Amino acid sequence: MLIVVSGPSGVGKGTVISRLLERQPELAKSVSCTTRGPRPGEQDGVDYHFVSVDRFRQMVAAGEFLEYARVHQDLWYGTPIAPVEAALAAGTDIALEIDYQGARSVRQAFGNRAALVFIAPPSWDALVARLQGRSTESADATAKRLASAKREFRHIGMFEYVVVNDELERAVIELESILIAERCRLESIDWQELQRQLSSEA
Amino acid sequence: MLIVVSGPSGVGKGTVISRLLERQPELAKSVSCTTRGPRPGEQDGVDYHFVSVDRFRQMVAAGEFLEYARVHQDLWYGTPIAPVEAALAAGTDIALEIDYQGARSVRQAFGNRAALVFIAPPSWDALVARLQGRSTESADATAKRLASAKREFRHIGMFEYVVVNDELERAVIELESILIAERCRLESIDWQELQRQLSSEA
Repeated sequence: MLIVVSGPSGVGKGTVISRLLERQPELAKSVSCTTRGPRPGEQDGVDYHFVSVDRFRQMVAAGEFLEYARVHQDLWYGTPIAPVEAALAAGTDIALEIDYQGARSVRQAFGNRAALVFIAPPSWDALVARLQGRSTESADATAKRLASAKREFRHIGMFEYVVVNDELERAVIELESILIAERCRLESIDWQELQRQLSSEA
Repeated sequence: MLIVVSGPSGVGKGTVISRLLERQPELAKSVSCTTRGPRPGEQDGVDYHFVSVDRFRQMVAAGEFLEYARVHQDLWYGTPIAPVEAALAAGTDIALEIDYQGARSVRQAFGNRAALVFIAPPSWDALVARLQGRSTESADATAKRLASAKREFRHIGMFEYVVVNDELERAVIELESILIAERCRLESIDWQELQRQLSSEA
């Protein structure tokens, strides 16, 4: 099963997912490729695969992405398809942090095997405050992220779940609950085999 | 939202629900009516409303049940509709412990506002062992419960979730996760209002 986590930049998706991975160690995480440079503390191959624009284009041409998006000019993000398919083949659940367009691509590619979760901020002002608090970014970059957030909000209706990140601990528990509940869904289990086992005495 | 918990007699539905209520104190529980006598430790009005067959028939005639079923001869169970409607009107979630036929009635009456969960034993033998361990019952009563369990198993496919009660703590967490996840579902929240709020700066 794929758990897709979307939501505007600054809403805390990364933190919520990191905490989920601590609580659910058997959950894999898809590592995206990006053409942006690493922020302080980010590690290549862990937070992202940091690649050049040329390399990114090669990967697009080779069909190596499940989904990819150009955020602006030379800023690209993409989800390599190979680790996702490897996780599914191994029966491992995998979390993907992508935008609504990526979520749509995943839904098209994997149907009901993907659960789509939107992480929302408690309010617009809270999101603005969080993004302005990122002192590493220019006002221009922040404005672009806010414009992009508005696009994200227009697509909430395509998601299956909404988690409002007003309190981190609660948001983590809600995301974890979604994961556990999805594993219990009739379609996620081999219920006909279970049914056979339970009737085997007959 | 209604959370409907079904599964064969002896699978531990009652225990799982009790533990869920401890963890989620704001969750209400529907108290069923039954014409059987109380088992040791059961309290009238808490575990069940214990009523006579005559009184039960009056309630059926008065349309006071959301669903009811005759298990055999003079053994009836029913879910009074008034507390369910009161809980929904107050915006409180409510748990119902009923059989697959009752679950079907709830689905017909409440559609997507109800989540249907089937609690399964880890195996047929485990269920037999549990029912035979109930020293308060005759071999005949146990045989009837096992026959009824087989009917339940044939209807697993109509449920949305399956929780296998091989380990109580895990089953409780799975049921709680289903409750929390269902509250996060797009249809459970006023997402258009959230969307308006998040765009209110524009």
